[in-house]
Amino acid sequence: MHRTKVRVVEDALDANNTIARANRGDFDRHELTVVNLMSAPGAGKTTLLERALADLPGVRAGVLEGDVQGSLDADRLAGLHIPVTQLNTDAGFGGECHLDANMVRSALPALPLEELDLLVIENVGNLVCPAEFRVGEDVRVMVSSVTEGEDKPLKYPLMFRQCELVLINKIDLLEHLEFDLELFEHHLDAVHPGVPRMLVSARTGEGIEGWREWLLELRARTAAPV
Amino acid sequence: MHRTKVRVVEDALDANNTIARANRGDFDRHELTVVNLMSAPGAGKTTLLERALADLPGVRAGVLEGDVQGSLDADRLAGLHIPVTQLNTDAGFGGECHLDANMVRSALPALPLEELDLLVIENVGNLVCPAEFRVGEDVRVMVSSVTEGEDKPLKYPLMFRQCELVLINKIDLLEHLEFDLELFEHHLDAVHPGVPRMLVSARTGEGIEGWREWLLELRARTAAPV
Repeated sequence: MHRTKVRVVEDALDANNTIARANRGDFDRHELTVVNLMSAPGAGKTTLLERALADLPGVRAGVLEGDVQGSLDADRLAGLHIPVTQLNTDAGFGGECHLDANMVRSALPALPLEELDLLVIENVGNLVCPAEFRVGEDVRVMVSSVTEGEDKPLKYPLMFRQCELVLINKIDLLEHLEFDLELFEHHLDAVHPGVPRMLVSARTGEGIEGWREWLLELRARTAAPV
Repeated sequence: MHRTKVRVVEDALDANNTIARANRGDFDRHELTVVNLMSAPGAGKTTLLERALADLPGVRAGVLEGDVQGSLDADRLAGLHIPVTQLNTDAGFGGECHLDANMVRSALPALPLEELDLLVIENVGNLVCPAEFRVGEDVRVMVSSVTEGEDKPLKYPLMFRQCELVLINKIDLLEHLEFDLELFEHHLDAVHPGVPRMLVSARTGEGIEGWREWLLELRARTAAPV
């Protein structure tokens, strides 16, 4: 029984990777840089995008918003006046807890790919399954809020291991918490040694300039001729 | 294709419900009250249990700790000197993002059911899938932290709809946040009108006595002869 289950999981991930490669082909054809943005619910992904994508110099950005239900986050991003497309995962009973390559593929026709340089895919708020499904992205960025505690890298290691940048958000609250930043980074390095990290506050704007520069450098790096 | 997928999901949920009923039978045989405790990662489930289960008068409590990996939470609860059993879901690639009835069933032999009155099953931190899988519990309780924002009931409606109590945690931070409690409760009532709720701070202890009384009343109610 157990072996059969593992096989089914592997087949599903193989199928997902095939579709992720097709997405990647479409992104390459449009010379598009794609970020898969992941976090727990309420860690601040949408506010970090509101802060980072406003008037990004020389980069035409767009967002694909993944949510179980509703379009609250897409509505919030409307003020940026950039293309935002909503993708809901609630076809199943309680909805899917992650985006997969096929869901992203189904949303591509609604996105003006030829008019974009940078696409951020905001995944469903969840620290487990989004890490298992590539969607054709260049990089994965995750947001971990200091209100969630120091133990999260040890409890959800795959997600922390598979991302290229960790945004440590809500640092404006540090003085009101018992959060031990050194211990968090120690746990982070235990599962993903040396992964780049940035201290940010989506609320006060602290650290946001660094996050914007990181996106601009990512774009310059991935758009450069080989 | 879509219809096939829905059918597969329904079959899986049917199978889960069958096993949940078997768990329920075992719990009934041992006159055990069972709580399924759910929340996003880092909302404070474990600290709320540390606070609530210490010396609960006349009630022998135990905990089944669900985590993708590790035993950090079970280790924290060791100080309570009550039976705590760890259940890890990481047999798959990145681990399962929820407990299901079969996982709970596999852990039952490790629990001294005959020595317990109240079993709390601490689910994996996730606002989507845990709501889809009954495990044989009497009630579901969810924890929503004020640091997660007011929109969570609208974004994850199934979980808020299927629980019998919402613990609104981390209220000691309210003065440092722009969290609008009235708006949160408005959203909560939109998806689950009138669901009982309690304002608590696992950190300062505020509201914890009410949560302990709720557990004692639940035990009295479920243990009473029909």
